[in-house]
Amino acid sequence: MGAAPAYRSMTPQQLRLELEELYADYTGCLDEERFEDWPGFFVEKCLYEIVPRENFERGLPLATWLCESKGYLEDRVVAIRKTSVYAPRTIRRMVSAIRILGWKDELLEARASYAAFETLPDELTRVFNVGQYHDRIAVDDGRLRFKEKICVFDSLLVPNSLIYPL
Amino acid sequence: MGAAPAYRSMTPQQLRLELEELYADYTGCLDEERFEDWPGFFVEKCLYEIVPRENFERGLPLATWLCESKGYLEDRVVAIRKTSVYAPRTIRRMVSAIRILGWKDELLEARASYAAFETLPDELTRVFNVGQYHDRIAVDDGRLRFKEKICVFDSLLVPNSLIYPL
Amino acid sequence: MGAAPAYRSMTPQQLRLELEELYADYTGCLDEERFEDWPGFFVEKCLYEIVPRENFERGLPLATWLCESKGYLEDRVVAIRKTSVYAPRTIRRMVSAIRILGWKDELLEARASYAAFETLPDELTRVFNVGQYHDRIAVDDGRLRFKEKICVFDSLLVPNSLIYPL
Repeated sequence: MGAAPAYRSMTPQQLRLELEELYADYTGCLDEERFEDWPGFFVEKCLYEIVPRENFERGLPLATWLCESKGYLEDRVVAIRKTSVYAPRTIRRMVSAIRILGWKDELLEARASYAAFETLPDELTRVFNVGQYHDRIAVDDGRLRFKEKICVFDSLLVPNSLIYPL
Repeated sequence: MGAAPAYRSMTPQQLRLELEELYADYTGCLDEERFEDWPGFFVEKCLYEIVPRENFERGLPLATWLCESKGYLEDRVVAIRKTSVYAPRTIRRMVSAIRILGWKDELLEARASYAAFETLPDELTRVFNVGQYHDRIAVDDGRLRFKEKICVFDSLLVPNSLIYPL
Repeated sequence: MGAAPAYRSMTPQQLRLELEELYADYTGCLDEERFEDWPGFFVEKCLYEIVPRENFERGLPLATWLCESKGYLEDRVVAIRKTSVYAPRTIRRMVSAIRILGWKDELLEARASYAAFETLPDELTRVFNVGQYHDRIAVDDGRLRFKEKICVFDSLLVPNSLIYPL
């Protein structure tokens, strides 16, 4: 693995640029609806959650989405592709305020704010869901992949149309 | 041109910083309504389009805006300044998820998500238009300028008040 | 102060990364409601304002918020914590288009666009306030701190619920 980027020895500025690229690639993948590529952003034994802030802060286990392995993520993609009981929609995800908290147990801890906008056919675009990514990122096979990605959203309302990942 | 930045030999991280500066300058110019400076972000023989995603993906030629040269952009600015049949408004543009796809035929291909917010007098700010920039960028006279900028917006609705550039 | 970053001798790209970190830390502090840490982003003799764009551009002195020292900011935090006449709410702040205007009188001048989203209990998230930071940043005790931060917001409407800083 001599050619793998030496993430552990990077300066905070270099790491910031790596994370900006990671989040741009991640949201680009989802915004362009290349859902089949989405699980590739995670390591095999991963955790992906979408959870309202109140539950997260109280430590309540109730999550709106809970995927406990990469296989779960792949199942989710199949479900997205096969289900068509919902109206087509476009989600556009913006990311801001990427913060590097540091390395812990070989994982890079990071947070970032996201805002997702939803557009339904014949409707104007609206704010769909905003929140914060709580991420633990591994160096896996020479690149950064999510070991844990928790999307903590601000609204107490659970969106009834949370069909695509955040 | 010895002092010109050697964009072609930059690392992806250096290029990312150049693009972040380019998009910040571009949206800053528009947000601050320095429209006369806007054509300067383009090369002479350029293409600027604003097009709904559905048309773009189907390859339909119908664009909401279509400017096929820098002169067209300048004409558009004159029209903005001379027309006053519309209510004054402020547009604020946010950019996220800048992705560098690579160099092709001397042009740097990049994508970025944008969200534009509109504020009318005595009204609250609302989401105006979100979408993705599909850009091909040239090194022109030692700096980066758009050869092609296509603003692909998510809504199928054509905003009836698309007066300022995105 | 041998270990202090030599901000004055940084390249624009290095400075951009420093500012991205500063704004991420700043908005992260506010989004996570660690208000007690907020005054620490300012120097002692500072100016913090929230002002509608129209007033700002006309040079009118009327500001929605006006804090003329770090002590004022600390008072404001006490008021936030002690007042509970308002409904709980979450604000999420996104920052984009960071622009470095240059050094002047030992201060780094910068601008950035922000968008703030508000979520009230049992309500959907909505656009709360968008605008532009007009910042003058000092090197204080080896780190970047705001000497002047003016939040110029686009709406002519003064939000009646501007309880938390922007």
